[in-house]
Amino acid sequence: MHIQTPYLLFLGDAADALAAKVAQGICDWRPEQAIGQYRMSGCQADLGLPDLSLEAAARAGARTLVIGVANRGGVISDAWVEVMLDALEQGMDIAAGLHNQLSEIPALAEKAARLGRTLFDVRHPTTQFPVATGVRRSGKRLLPVGTDCSCGKMYTALAIEKAMRQRGMKADFRATGQTGILVAGGGVPVDAVVADFISGAVETLTPENDPDHWDIVEGQGSLFHASFAGVTTGLIHGAQPDALVLCHEPTRTHMRGLPDFPLPELGECMEANLRTARLTNPDARFVAIAVNSSKLSPADAKAYLEETEARYGLTTVDPVRQGVERIVDELARW
Amino acid sequence: MHIQTPYLLFLGDAADALAAKVAQGICDWRPEQAIGQYRMSGCQADLGLPDLSLEAAARAGARTLVIGVANRGGVISDAWVEVMLDALEQGMDIAAGLHNQLSEIPALAEKAARLGRTLFDVRHPTTQFPVATGVRRSGKRLLPVGTDCSCGKMYTALAIEKAMRQRGMKADFRATGQTGILVAGGGVPVDAVVADFISGAVETLTPENDPDHWDIVEGQGSLFHASFAGVTTGLIHGAQPDALVLCHEPTRTHMRGLPDFPLPELGECMEANLRTARLTNPDARFVAIAVNSSKLSPADAKAYLEETEARYGLTTVDPVRQGVERIVDELARW
Repeated sequence: MHIQTPYLLFLGDAADALAAKVAQGICDWRPEQAIGQYRMSGCQADLGLPDLSLEAAARAGARTLVIGVANRGGVISDAWVEVMLDALEQGMDIAAGLHNQLSEIPALAEKAARLGRTLFDVRHPTTQFPVATGVRRSGKRLLPVGTDCSCGKMYTALAIEKAMRQRGMKADFRATGQTGILVAGGGVPVDAVVADFISGAVETLTPENDPDHWDIVEGQGSLFHASFAGVTTGLIHGAQPDALVLCHEPTRTHMRGLPDFPLPELGECMEANLRTARLTNPDARFVAIAVNSSKLSPADAKAYLEETEARYGLTTVDPVRQGVERIVDELARW
Repeated sequence: MHIQTPYLLFLGDAADALAAKVAQGICDWRPEQAIGQYRMSGCQADLGLPDLSLEAAARAGARTLVIGVANRGGVISDAWVEVMLDALEQGMDIAAGLHNQLSEIPALAEKAARLGRTLFDVRHPTTQFPVATGVRRSGKRLLPVGTDCSCGKMYTALAIEKAMRQRGMKADFRATGQTGILVAGGGVPVDAVVADFISGAVETLTPENDPDHWDIVEGQGSLFHASFAGVTTGLIHGAQPDALVLCHEPTRTHMRGLPDFPLPELGECMEANLRTARLTNPDARFVAIAVNSSKLSPADAKAYLEETEARYGLTTVDPVRQGVERIVDELARW
């Protein structure tokens, strides 16, 4: 899956800024790839990009219209389809991470086929993946793992990639979820892969590389999440991480979506991840803890980070508040 | 997925008895559902069932032609398709666990649709499964887990179901692989489910039940298999097993298909499985060890079983050589 850049970001009739968070992610992490935004009447989101017509965007070189908005009720409205059909006419591909597939909208599928355009449904892999071999590959790999889902793993990975590249280190973010894939322009939606091929898909995503090259792999789920731990296990085994970063949101009272499941203690969580990781990489170790402290006051956050760093003996930062330079310091010494 | 019984077992042009092992499994475990066999010229397998023509089988009540043979090279020959088309004409459905799908053979798909017959491709789930909730369900569940793949988990589960039923205990084998599904007439091929839904599919397969009812769930893979541990993890979390049985083949020198991976020590393997199982069932415990000692002499097997039983303090049997009565004794006292 390789999505052509640059992008025109479709915000549609986003109800608020949060509804456009996929587009926001692309703007934050790949600003050079977003040449404009397309907003419909009533749109309550604004990325601060030039508002471009489809024609103007095409003239400016846009190769793909990216659906950067979460649609209400999961249904693609007819008004959206009109815009998408025009985008195909203007020479663009379309990429989306929606639950329903672009390719299942007959008018879109037909026009894309006729014009030779591609519809990227990044949640729905079309590739056939191999079974994992477990064979070690050259190059280094970092994987964020979480005490829970949705606690900052993608942000942490992208921040580390950016900071490493700014220092001239070789690093590539490897996307495993739909937002990450739209940001990176490619990747594997591991949670949508057939179960037998989870690890094999991740091996494919993170191939052999230069000895000083780092794959910064997007994490998924948690070994302690009763719904998704199978995905996490397969991801860890396939990625063969050298370095692990534990991601944690300290105010959460239970696992996301599972009111009866408490969060694991951080040390217990790291031990479980290490045991899993060492099956395919005996040298795996934790390099840092990344805390999402957005719900804590600055003073409480500072105290929590200091206490956590002292307790576990690992560099502990909030990637949003402090950045990830201290984590990259560790990786530079690897 | 519910396959109608009784079956006519299709052995095709099986090269030897082993090629017909799916049909043999059905004969062994569900003899009352196999009313005959259908062999083509050159067939080297014989289940000892009556050889029936399609017409005779239909008259005798056969509802489904089950493809009970592994085809050479993964290709369904034209000669097979002729037989299958006739079976549809005679009123039968067709079920197969092949890699290529019956429904992708146009002549079969068309005739089945026209006649209102069903083609069961048991490797390829068509159901949409929910995400797992992790909520505890009434009833009891047993799950065999392995040091490796293909070490006797399905056999152990079916033997335990049979022995429990003979004692009047409430027990149902729950199939998670293609052979098991053909034996049971239903189930979920967990390794073919989309990764996000592994545990949810298993929750669906093993629903709430009477407090004294046992689901005997077919195990898959191994937590120590670098290709498939994600499937195993999701299966354990979804099954919420009360009782675990460790399955082991003691002469294997490395993990199946992975020459660089040694087998885990049995105690380490049980600890890892218990940690995983206790996320969704804190009361999970091992009840027995089932050894596939087929490659050991009777004397060596006896010594190995005694030594293993003494070392781990768990009932240890070879289900083929000794049967599983001692395991069921444990379950009867649960």
